[in-house]
Amino acid sequence: MSTYTRPDLEQLRDFYRDSLIDDTLKFWLPRSIDTTHGGYLLMRDQDGSLLDDDKSVWFQGRFSSILGNLYNHVEPRQEWLDGARAGVDFLREHCIDDDGQMFFLVTRDGTPLRKRRYFFSEAFAIAAYAHYAKATQDESLAQEARDLFKRCTEYADGSRPLPPKTTGARPTQGLGVPMIFLNVAQQLCDTVGCDFAASQIDDYISQIESCVDDELRCVWECTDPEGNMIDHLQERTITPGHAIEGAWFILHEAKRRGGDKRLEKLGLKMLDYSWEQGWDQEHGGIIYFRDPTGKPVMEYWQDMKFWWPQNEAIIATLLAYTMTGDDKYARWHKMIHDYAHAHFHDKEHGEWFGYLHRDGRVSTAMKGNHYKGPFHLPRMQTYCWQLLEEHLAK
Amino acid sequence: MSTYTRPDLEQLRDFYRDSLIDDTLKFWLPRSIDTTHGGYLLMRDQDGSLLDDDKSVWFQGRFSSILGNLYNHVEPRQEWLDGARAGVDFLREHCIDDDGQMFFLVTRDGTPLRKRRYFFSEAFAIAAYAHYAKATQDESLAQEARDLFKRCTEYADGSRPLPPKTTGARPTQGLGVPMIFLNVAQQLCDTVGCDFAASQIDDYISQIESCVDDELRCVWECTDPEGNMIDHLQERTITPGHAIEGAWFILHEAKRRGGDKRLEKLGLKMLDYSWEQGWDQEHGGIIYFRDPTGKPVMEYWQDMKFWWPQNEAIIATLLAYTMTGDDKYARWHKMIHDYAHAHFHDKEHGEWFGYLHRDGRVSTAMKGNHYKGPFHLPRMQTYCWQLLEEHLAK
Repeated sequence: MSTYTRPDLEQLRDFYRDSLIDDTLKFWLPRSIDTTHGGYLLMRDQDGSLLDDDKSVWFQGRFSSILGNLYNHVEPRQEWLDGARAGVDFLREHCIDDDGQMFFLVTRDGTPLRKRRYFFSEAFAIAAYAHYAKATQDESLAQEARDLFKRCTEYADGSRPLPPKTTGARPTQGLGVPMIFLNVAQQLCDTVGCDFAASQIDDYISQIESCVDDELRCVWECTDPEGNMIDHLQERTITPGHAIEGAWFILHEAKRRGGDKRLEKLGLKMLDYSWEQGWDQEHGGIIYFRDPTGKPVMEYWQDMKFWWPQNEAIIATLLAYTMTGDDKYARWHKMIHDYAHAHFHDKEHGEWFGYLHRDGRVSTAMKGNHYKGPFHLPRMQTYCWQLLEEHLAK
Repeated sequence: MSTYTRPDLEQLRDFYRDSLIDDTLKFWLPRSIDTTHGGYLLMRDQDGSLLDDDKSVWFQGRFSSILGNLYNHVEPRQEWLDGARAGVDFLREHCIDDDGQMFFLVTRDGTPLRKRRYFFSEAFAIAAYAHYAKATQDESLAQEARDLFKRCTEYADGSRPLPPKTTGARPTQGLGVPMIFLNVAQQLCDTVGCDFAASQIDDYISQIESCVDDELRCVWECTDPEGNMIDHLQERTITPGHAIEGAWFILHEAKRRGGDKRLEKLGLKMLDYSWEQGWDQEHGGIIYFRDPTGKPVMEYWQDMKFWWPQNEAIIATLLAYTMTGDDKYARWHKMIHDYAHAHFHDKEHGEWFGYLHRDGRVSTAMKGNHYKGPFHLPRMQTYCWQLLEEHLAK
């Protein structure tokens, strides 16, 4: 007997929809829109009270892209469009330095506090601009999104240098940049269109593919330029949830291309390896870090459970199941869905806790900070809801 | 009845001495001296096997200063002098960039990998140079130590700018720099002498003092330039073990000055506040982070127990006890000494675990990495042994 019947899938679809609309979005809206200074106030305690009025630039872009996507692909609610605009306006007015690089943290009124030596603020801004430009048919903003994407490829290939974090004596290639920009390129192409971004996708995929290690059955966060393991503490550390996120970006790409079997195989392999590495057989859930060689991991909090790897695993397993019909993925989906909702969902105040100890006890109950906010959870709920709508309509 | 009798203190003295010589140093020596490339190979697993042959520049200086101090103040063993030289030579040959700033991480053969935007590699190098210069009567190396100290004060006051980590829109003053450099200045003055370093000590103490908050009874890691709390997530986070380390540096300074009562009072207050904030009433030990306003801490691993805060608390409470005779400090010392040795000491392979969960379970059993190595533990054992020798001789 298969894990999921049609009524099960209908129930799941309704669950993701209702959780998104009646729980997650209700936690954040309308209170997080800053009607005084623009943008969002997202650093919130368990009950939603504000812990800090600084603004993470990542999350100004991330939340805007969530709302813009909902407006474009789910329902044209004015609240979502207005919400998406708050982030885009704040990003464009306050979050870009004179040299064109974006900041990482600003004060409530947009005074810059911190800048980083990489360009993920830009990645999330591109997605925000793209969704809002599509919603409002704003070709000038669409072009800003495309220009910003181009600029990021220049940061990535070194033709527009950023202050270096390492000396370059141990050259690496990483999973993070091609993965995030694969997803950004997909969104840019599917909203306002961008030939240049479309032309980059194959290269991102081959960079990701070279992080896959068939011998140790894992996906490295970074390798040497030839794709070989770097045998040092930090470089041996893998992040299964991150690789599972990459897996579903690739499965999504296989679907975008009308069923590309090579990409499907790659995405499934990344999911399989990372599930084997990351699933905690003792307590359930996806563990944060592992060393696939069996040596200890330097990060002392390596065995914690964060909210976002669980979100990525819920998407990846459901997507793999709908694409393949393989009951293994339905079983995995049920395992991670049940574990995550039992342990992470805050039954009292809504939304999810972010940080659990390995055994499921809450470490800190805050809902938003520099790194957590309305992104992975509503993205998962939106994606799974829409995926099941589409799957059930077949 | 007081907590410690004279035989108790004699037993403690022997315990610290024997733990240092027969356990901690035996774990690291001779295997950690790199006879091929110089310096130390310190990133080691629970059983001492090598996990990574990269070299943390902090630890090249730190371990050298530990060995140099043992040679100078405990016993002139050739093994300790040779060991101290290995670090000093490696630092001078491989760890300084062309612009004079020191690196953070280098390969086994000394190829630079990473540089940071602060100057703690320098702090530990100064101490290493100073101890070795005293041991060998090398006035030229002593002058290098003094010059490097001067250079650090220029980094600190901005007259020799480093790449900024923040925009400066929210000016802060921190506990870290004055604390570390108070300790470095003490070592420099007490080994090879340095009038300039001596002249800085009062300023470091007044910077530390302005982090003490009598209302909330805590020591801030940073405040605004007037010493007021900064009401944001990161700046509200205190590190009790760090403030306890600062407390004993100040108590030590009170002793250096032949019994300065104002400094003694300041050090005791810092210890009292930080013990109240940091001692885990449920499981024992000093917790890593706290928010003294009662709000949640952003760092998700905030409730872990690290080895070094326990080491600092063992020193601070014993020093406070020997200076005041107040039995409260003997009680606290017994609590932290017993807790730490029961939970952190590795009975199988020697040395201490670095990283425990709040309830005392080991998170990762490695003995050395970028941040842990032979420093806090042997410093505590040396300091407490010598302190008790001196106290019992009175």
